[in-house]
Amino acid sequence: MKVEKFEEMRQKALNCFEKASIVLTDIEKKNIEVADFGLDDVERTGLQLVVYINTDRVCAKEMVLLPNQTCPEHRHPNIENEPGKEETFRCRWGMVYLYVDGIPSEKRSTNPPSGDEKYYSVFHEVILNPGEQYTIYPNTLHWFQSGAEGAVVSEFSTRSKDEADVFTDVRIKRIPEIES
Amino acid sequence: MKVEKFEEMRQKALNCFEKASIVLTDIEKKNIEVADFGLDDVERTGLQLVVYINTDRVCAKEMVLLPNQTCPEHRHPNIENEPGKEETFRCRWGMVYLYVDGIPSEKRSTNPPSGDEKYYSVFHEVILNPGEQYTIYPNTLHWFQSGAEGAVVSEFSTRSKDEADVFTDVRIKRIPEIES
Repeated sequence: MKVEKFEEMRQKALNCFEKASIVLTDIEKKNIEVADFGLDDVERTGLQLVVYINTDRVCAKEMVLLPNQTCPEHRHPNIENEPGKEETFRCRWGMVYLYVDGIPSEKRSTNPPSGDEKYYSVFHEVILNPGEQYTIYPNTLHWFQSGAEGAVVSEFSTRSKDEADVFTDVRIKRIPEIES
Repeated sequence: MKVEKFEEMRQKALNCFEKASIVLTDIEKKNIEVADFGLDDVERTGLQLVVYINTDRVCAKEMVLLPNQTCPEHRHPNIENEPGKEETFRCRWGMVYLYVDGIPSEKRSTNPPSGDEKYYSVFHEVILNPGEQYTIYPNTLHWFQSGAEGAVVSEFSTRSKDEADVFTDVRIKRIPEIES
Protein backbone atom coordinates (compact mmCIF):
# COMPACT_ATOMS: atom_id res chain seq x y z
CA MET A 1 0.00 0.00 0.00
CA LYS A 2 1.28 3.45 -0.88
CA VAL A 3 1.66 5.90 1.97
CA GLU A 4 -0.87 8.28 0.36
CA LYS A 5 -3.51 5.53 0.23
CA PHE A 6 -2.72 4.58 3.83
CA GLU A 7 -3.22 8.18 4.94
CA GLU A 8 -6.47 8.47 2.97
CA MET A 9 -7.87 5.32 4.62
CA ARG A 10 -6.72 6.51 8.05
CA GLN A 11 -8.56 9.81 7.61
CA LYS A 12 -11.73 8.06 6.45
CA ALA A 13 -11.54 5.75 9.46
CA LEU A 14 -11.17 8.77 11.77
CA ASN A 15 -14.31 10.27 10.22
CA CYS A 16 -16.23 7.06 10.96
CA PHE A 17 -14.99 6.96 14.55
CA GLU A 18 -16.16 10.54 14.94
CA LYS A 19 -19.60 9.76 13.52
CA ALA A 20 -19.83 6.84 15.96
CA SER A 21 -18.76 9.13 18.88
CA ILE A 22 -15.80 6.86 19.63
CA VAL A 23 -13.14 8.91 21.43
CA LEU A 24 -9.51 8.05 20.71
CA THR A 25 -6.31 9.48 22.11
CA ASP A 26 -3.97 11.35 19.77
CA ILE A 27 -1.55 8.40 19.85
CA GLU A 28 -4.33 5.98 18.91
CA LYS A 29 -5.41 8.26 16.06
CA LYS A 30 -1.85 8.38 14.77
CA ASN A 31 -1.36 4.62 15.04
CA ILE A 32 -4.54 3.41 13.34
CA GLU A 33 -3.73 0.18 11.53
CA VAL A 34 -4.81 -0.07 7.91
CA ALA A 35 -4.74 -3.71 6.83
CA ASP A 36 -4.79 -4.45 3.11
CA PHE A 37 -3.97 -8.15 3.66
CA GLY A 38 -1.28 -7.88 1.02
CA LEU A 39 -3.85 -7.67 -1.81
CA ASP A 40 -3.24 -3.98 -2.60
CA ASP A 41 -6.99 -3.51 -3.08
CA VAL A 42 -7.74 -1.92 0.29
CA GLU A 43 -10.95 -0.11 -0.65
CA ARG A 44 -12.57 -3.47 -1.45
CA THR A 45 -10.62 -5.82 0.84
CA GLY A 46 -9.32 -4.17 3.96
CA LEU A 47 -9.88 -3.14 7.54
CA GLN A 48 -8.95 -0.18 9.75
CA LEU A 49 -8.41 -0.84 13.44
CA VAL A 50 -7.24 0.44 16.79
CA VAL A 51 -5.98 -2.16 19.28
CA TYR A 52 -6.94 -0.96 22.75
CA ILE A 53 -5.36 -3.84 24.65
CA ASN A 54 -3.76 -7.18 23.77
CA THR A 55 -2.33 -9.12 26.71
CA ASP A 56 -1.75 -12.87 27.09
CA ARG A 57 -5.39 -13.25 28.09
CA VAL A 58 -7.54 -10.42 26.72
CA CYS A 59 -7.78 -8.33 23.57
CA ALA A 60 -10.10 -5.46 22.63
CA LYS A 61 -10.13 -3.57 19.35
CA GLU A 62 -12.24 -0.92 17.64
CA MET A 63 -12.56 -1.59 13.93
CA VAL A 64 -13.78 0.48 11.00
CA LEU A 65 -15.07 -0.95 7.75
CA LEU A 66 -15.37 1.70 5.07
CA PRO A 67 -18.43 1.52 2.77
CA ASN A 68 -18.78 -1.99 1.30
CA GLN A 69 -15.28 -2.95 2.45
CA THR A 70 -14.70 -6.65 3.17
CA CYS A 71 -12.58 -8.35 5.82
CA PRO A 72 -11.68 -11.57 3.99
CA GLU A 73 -12.56 -15.09 5.10
CA HIS A 74 -10.36 -16.56 7.81
CA ARG A 75 -10.29 -18.61 11.00
CA HIS A 76 -8.32 -18.58 14.24
CA PRO A 77 -6.86 -22.08 14.65
CA ASN A 78 -6.01 -23.87 17.88
CA ILE A 79 -2.26 -23.71 18.50
CA GLU A 80 -0.82 -26.80 20.16
CA ASN A 81 -2.84 -27.23 23.36
CA GLU A 82 -4.24 -23.71 23.34
CA PRO A 83 -7.68 -23.07 21.88
CA GLY A 84 -7.77 -20.48 19.09
CA LYS A 85 -9.03 -16.94 19.42
CA GLU A 86 -12.63 -16.44 20.50
CA GLU A 87 -14.09 -13.10 19.47
CA THR A 88 -17.31 -11.17 19.86
CA PHE A 89 -18.17 -8.51 17.28
CA ARG A 90 -20.47 -5.75 18.49
CA CYS A 91 -21.72 -3.28 15.91
CA ARG A 92 -21.53 0.28 17.25
CA TRP A 93 -22.45 2.29 14.17
CA GLY A 94 -23.48 1.55 10.58
CA MET A 95 -24.28 -2.00 9.53
CA VAL A 96 -22.27 -5.20 9.17
CA TYR A 97 -23.01 -8.33 7.19
CA LEU A 98 -21.21 -11.22 8.86
CA TYR A 99 -20.85 -14.62 7.21
CA VAL A 100 -20.14 -17.74 9.24
CA ASP A 101 -20.10 -21.49 8.77
CA GLY A 102 -23.62 -22.95 8.65
CA ILE A 103 -26.53 -23.33 6.29
CA PRO A 104 -25.99 -20.81 3.45
CA SER A 105 -28.58 -18.04 3.57
CA GLU A 106 -30.99 -18.22 0.64
CA LYS A 107 -31.07 -14.50 0.10
CA ARG A 108 -27.74 -12.90 0.76
CA SER A 109 -27.36 -9.14 1.21
CA THR A 110 -23.81 -8.92 -0.16
CA ASN A 111 -21.24 -10.85 -2.16
CA PRO A 112 -17.50 -11.38 -1.86
CA PRO A 113 -15.40 -8.87 -3.80
CA SER A 114 -15.92 -9.56 -7.49
CA GLY A 115 -13.21 -11.84 -8.90
CA ASP A 116 -12.30 -13.21 -5.46
CA GLU A 117 -15.31 -15.54 -5.08
CA LYS A 118 -13.18 -18.67 -5.02
CA TYR A 119 -11.63 -17.57 -1.73
CA TYR A 120 -14.98 -17.45 0.08
CA SER A 121 -16.74 -20.62 1.27
CA VAL A 122 -19.11 -19.78 4.16
CA PHE A 123 -22.38 -17.98 3.49
CA HIS A 124 -24.58 -18.14 6.56
CA GLU A 125 -25.52 -14.47 6.96
CA VAL A 126 -25.81 -12.63 10.27
CA ILE A 127 -26.83 -8.97 10.05
CA LEU A 128 -25.54 -6.71 12.82
CA ASN A 129 -27.15 -3.34 13.39
CA PRO A 130 -25.87 -0.97 16.08
CA GLY A 131 -26.13 -2.65 19.50
CA GLU A 132 -26.20 -6.14 18.00
CA GLN A 133 -23.38 -8.64 18.40
CA TYR A 134 -22.24 -12.14 17.53
CA THR A 135 -19.59 -14.46 19.00
CA ILE A 136 -17.18 -16.42 16.79
CA TYR A 137 -15.69 -19.47 18.47
CA PRO A 138 -12.18 -20.79 17.66
CA ASN A 139 -11.38 -22.28 14.29
CA THR A 140 -14.68 -21.12 12.73
CA LEU A 141 -14.46 -19.65 9.23
CA HIS A 142 -15.92 -16.13 8.94
CA TRP A 143 -15.80 -12.98 6.83
CA PHE A 144 -17.67 -9.70 6.98
CA GLN A 145 -18.58 -6.71 4.88
CA SER A 146 -20.08 -3.36 5.80
CA GLY A 147 -23.12 -1.70 4.30
CA ALA A 148 -23.15 1.42 2.16
CA GLU A 149 -22.36 3.74 5.09
CA GLY A 150 -19.48 1.74 6.52
CA ALA A 151 -19.43 0.44 10.08
CA VAL A 152 -17.70 0.69 13.43
CA VAL A 153 -17.38 -2.62 15.26
CA SER A 154 -15.96 -3.40 18.71
CA GLU A 155 -14.16 -6.69 19.07
CA PHE A 156 -13.84 -8.37 22.49
CA SER A 157 -11.59 -11.43 22.41
CA THR A 158 -8.88 -13.61 23.79
CA ARG A 159 -5.30 -12.76 22.80
CA SER A 160 -4.94 -11.65 19.20
CA LYS A 161 -2.22 -13.43 17.21
CA ASP A 162 -2.81 -12.03 13.75
CA GLU A 163 0.15 -13.94 12.33
CA ALA A 164 -1.57 -17.23 13.25
CA ASP A 165 -4.80 -16.46 11.37
CA VAL A 166 -5.53 -18.80 8.46
CA PHE A 167 -7.04 -17.09 5.41
CA THR A 168 -8.89 -18.96 2.69
CA ASP A 169 -7.24 -16.69 0.12
CA VAL A 170 -3.72 -18.10 -0.18
CA ARG A 171 -2.45 -14.81 -1.62
CA ILE A 172 -3.05 -12.99 1.66
CA LYS A 173 -0.30 -11.65 3.86
CA ARG A 174 -1.85 -10.37 7.09
CA ILE A 175 0.91 -7.93 8.02
CA PRO A 176 0.57 -4.91 5.73
CA GLU A 177 3.45 -3.24 3.99
CA ILE A 178 3.52 0.49 3.42
CA GLU A 179 5.55 1.80 0.52
CA SER A 180 6.96 5.28 0.58
CA MET B 1 -32.96 -1.71 47.09
CA LYS B 2 -36.57 -0.75 46.49
CA VAL B 3 -37.92 -1.32 43.00
CA GLU B 4 -38.63 2.43 42.57
CA LYS B 5 -35.00 3.28 43.32
CA PHE B 6 -33.82 0.55 40.95
CA GLU B 7 -36.00 1.99 38.18
CA GLU B 8 -34.75 5.53 38.88
CA MET B 9 -31.11 4.42 38.64
CA ARG B 10 -31.81 2.42 35.50
CA GLN B 11 -33.35 5.47 33.82
CA LYS B 12 -30.42 7.66 34.82
CA ALA B 13 -28.01 5.07 33.43
CA LEU B 14 -29.94 5.00 30.14
CA ASN B 15 -29.59 8.79 29.94
CA CYS B 16 -25.82 8.48 30.37
CA PHE B 17 -25.57 5.78 27.71
CA GLU B 18 -27.49 8.05 25.37
CA LYS B 19 -25.20 11.00 26.07
CA ALA B 20 -22.23 8.73 25.35
CA SER B 21 -23.87 7.52 22.08
CA ILE B 22 -23.72 3.91 23.29
CA VAL B 23 -26.41 1.93 21.46
CA LEU B 24 -28.11 -0.88 23.41
CA THR B 25 -30.76 -3.37 22.35
CA ASP B 26 -34.17 -3.18 24.03
CA ILE B 27 -33.37 -6.35 26.00
CA GLU B 28 -30.10 -4.86 27.24
CA LYS B 29 -31.90 -1.66 28.26
CA LYS B 30 -34.47 -3.67 30.20
CA ASN B 31 -31.84 -5.84 31.89
CA ILE B 32 -29.43 -3.14 33.07
CA GLU B 33 -27.92 -4.31 36.35
CA VAL B 34 -28.01 -1.84 39.22
CA ALA B 35 -25.56 -3.00 41.90
CA ASP B 36 -25.90 -1.48 45.36
CA PHE B 37 -23.45 -3.98 46.88
CA GLY B 38 -25.96 -4.65 49.67
CA LEU B 39 -25.27 -1.26 51.28
CA ASP B 40 -28.64 0.30 50.33
CA ASP B 41 -26.87 3.57 49.56
CA VAL B 42 -26.77 3.21 45.79
CA GLU B 43 -26.47 6.90 44.88
CA ARG B 44 -23.16 7.05 46.76
CA THR B 45 -21.96 3.44 46.45
CA GLY B 46 -23.21 1.67 43.38
CA LEU B 47 -22.74 0.83 39.74
CA GLN B 48 -24.97 0.34 36.71
CA LEU B 49 -23.86 -2.12 34.07
CA VAL B 50 -24.66 -4.05 30.93
CA VAL B 51 -22.82 -7.34 30.41
CA TYR B 52 -22.25 -7.76 26.67
CA ILE B 53 -20.54 -11.12 26.86
CA ASN B 54 -19.17 -13.38 29.61
CA THR B 55 -17.82 -16.73 28.45
CA ASP B 56 -15.21 -18.99 30.07
CA ARG B 57 -12.48 -16.86 28.47
CA VAL B 58 -13.71 -13.33 27.73
CA CYS B 59 -15.96 -10.73 29.31
CA ALA B 60 -17.00 -7.26 28.13
CA LYS B 61 -19.25 -4.83 29.97
CA GLU B 62 -20.43 -1.25 29.59
CA MET B 63 -20.67 0.49 32.96
CA VAL B 64 -22.27 3.74 34.11
CA LEU B 65 -21.24 5.64 37.19
CA LEU B 66 -23.75 8.33 38.09
CA PRO B 67 -22.37 11.67 39.33
CA ASN B 68 -19.87 11.10 42.16
CA GLN B 69 -20.93 7.48 42.53
CA THR B 70 -18.30 5.04 43.85
CA CYS B 71 -17.59 1.42 42.99
CA PRO B 72 -16.15 0.21 46.29
CA GLU B 73 -12.66 -1.20 46.84
CA HIS B 74 -12.18 -4.81 45.82
CA ARG B 75 -9.84 -7.30 44.16
CA HIS B 76 -10.21 -10.33 41.92
CA PRO B 77 -8.33 -13.18 43.62
CA ASN B 78 -6.65 -16.15 41.99
CA ILE B 79 -8.85 -19.24 42.34
CA GLU B 80 -6.91 -22.48 42.79
CA ASN B 81 -4.59 -22.66 39.78
CA GLU B 82 -6.41 -20.03 37.75
CA PRO B 83 -5.23 -16.42 37.83
CA GLY B 84 -7.88 -13.91 38.90
CA LYS B 85 -9.73 -11.56 36.62
CA GLU B 86 -7.68 -9.11 34.53
CA GLU B 87 -9.60 -6.05 33.42
CA THR B 88 -9.05 -2.93 31.36
CA PHE B 89 -11.20 0.11 32.05
CA ARG B 90 -11.64 2.49 29.12
CA CYS B 91 -13.41 5.76 29.78
CA ARG B 92 -15.90 6.54 27.00
CA TRP B 93 -17.66 9.59 28.38
CA GLY B 94 -17.39 11.77 31.50
CA MET B 95 -14.48 11.33 33.87
CA VAL B 96 -13.35 8.56 36.22
CA TYR B 97 -11.02 8.71 39.20
CA LEU B 98 -9.48 5.28 39.63
CA TYR B 99 -7.52 4.31 42.74
CA VAL B 100 -5.06 1.43 42.72
CA ASP B 101 -2.35 -0.02 44.92
CA GLY B 102 0.83 2.08 44.83
CA ILE B 103 2.27 5.28 46.27
CA PRO B 104 -0.70 7.29 47.58
CA SER B 105 -1.22 10.43 45.51
CA GLU B 106 -0.41 13.59 47.45
CA LYS B 107 -3.34 15.56 46.10
CA ARG B 108 -6.36 13.38 45.61
CA SER B 109 -9.34 14.53 43.51
CA THR B 110 -11.96 12.59 45.44
CA ASN B 111 -12.56 10.77 48.70
CA PRO B 112 -14.30 7.53 49.64
CA PRO B 113 -17.97 7.94 50.62
CA SER B 114 -18.07 9.81 53.92
CA GLY B 115 -18.31 7.43 56.87
CA ASP B 116 -16.93 4.49 54.87
CA GLU B 117 -13.27 5.59 54.91
CA LYS B 118 -12.14 2.57 56.90
CA TYR B 119 -13.08 0.28 54.01
CA TYR B 120 -10.69 2.02 51.58
CA SER B 121 -6.93 1.40 51.65
CA VAL B 122 -5.42 2.19 48.21
CA PHE B 123 -5.00 5.77 47.09
CA HIS B 124 -2.77 5.92 44.03
CA GLU B 125 -4.90 8.05 41.71
CA VAL B 126 -5.29 7.49 37.96
CA ILE B 127 -7.52 9.96 36.14
CA LEU B 128 -9.31 8.65 33.05
CA ASN B 129 -10.77 11.08 30.54
CA PRO B 130 -12.64 9.84 27.46
CA GLY B 131 -10.35 7.65 25.35
CA GLU B 132 -8.02 6.90 28.28
CA GLN B 133 -7.71 3.47 29.83
CA TYR B 134 -5.96 1.48 32.54
CA THR B 135 -5.41 -2.24 33.09
CA ILE B 136 -5.92 -3.87 36.50
CA TYR B 137 -4.05 -7.15 36.93
CA PRO B 138 -5.37 -10.01 39.11
CA ASN B 139 -5.56 -9.65 42.87
CA THR B 140 -4.87 -5.88 42.79
CA LEU B 141 -7.02 -3.72 45.07
CA HIS B 142 -8.88 -0.94 43.27
CA TRP B 143 -11.88 1.36 43.53
CA PHE B 144 -13.23 4.15 41.38
CA GLN B 145 -15.49 7.16 41.47
CA SER B 146 -16.91 9.33 38.72
CA GLY B 147 -16.72 13.08 38.43
CA ALA B 148 -19.63 15.51 38.71
CA GLU B 149 -21.13 14.52 35.34
CA GLY B 150 -20.96 10.76 35.82
CA ALA B 151 -19.10 8.44 33.47
CA VAL B 152 -19.47 5.63 30.97
CA VAL B 153 -16.68 3.05 31.11
CA SER B 154 -16.06 -0.02 28.94
CA GLU B 155 -14.53 -3.01 30.68
CA PHE B 156 -12.58 -5.62 28.69
CA SER B 157 -11.62 -8.62 30.80
CA THR B 158 -11.23 -12.32 31.37
CA ARG B 159 -14.28 -14.17 32.71
CA SER B 160 -16.23 -12.24 35.30
CA LYS B 161 -17.02 -14.13 38.49
CA ASP B 162 -18.62 -11.42 40.58
CA GLU B 163 -19.31 -13.82 43.44
CA ALA B 164 -15.53 -14.41 43.81
CA ASP B 165 -14.67 -10.70 44.20
CA VAL B 166 -13.18 -9.77 47.58
CA PHE B 167 -14.36 -6.41 48.94
CA THR B 168 -12.52 -4.51 51.66
CA ASP B 169 -15.90 -3.54 53.14
CA VAL B 170 -17.01 -6.70 54.96
CA ARG B 171 -20.63 -5.55 54.91
CA ILE B 172 -20.81 -5.86 51.11
CA LYS B 173 -22.93 -8.44 49.33
CA ARG B 174 -22.16 -8.24 45.61
CA ILE B 175 -25.42 -9.72 44.35
CA PRO B 176 -28.09 -7.04 44.75
CA GLU B 177 -31.55 -7.68 46.12
CA ILE B 178 -34.56 -5.81 44.80
CA GLU B 179 -37.53 -5.43 47.14
CA SER B 180 -41.01 -5.07 45.74
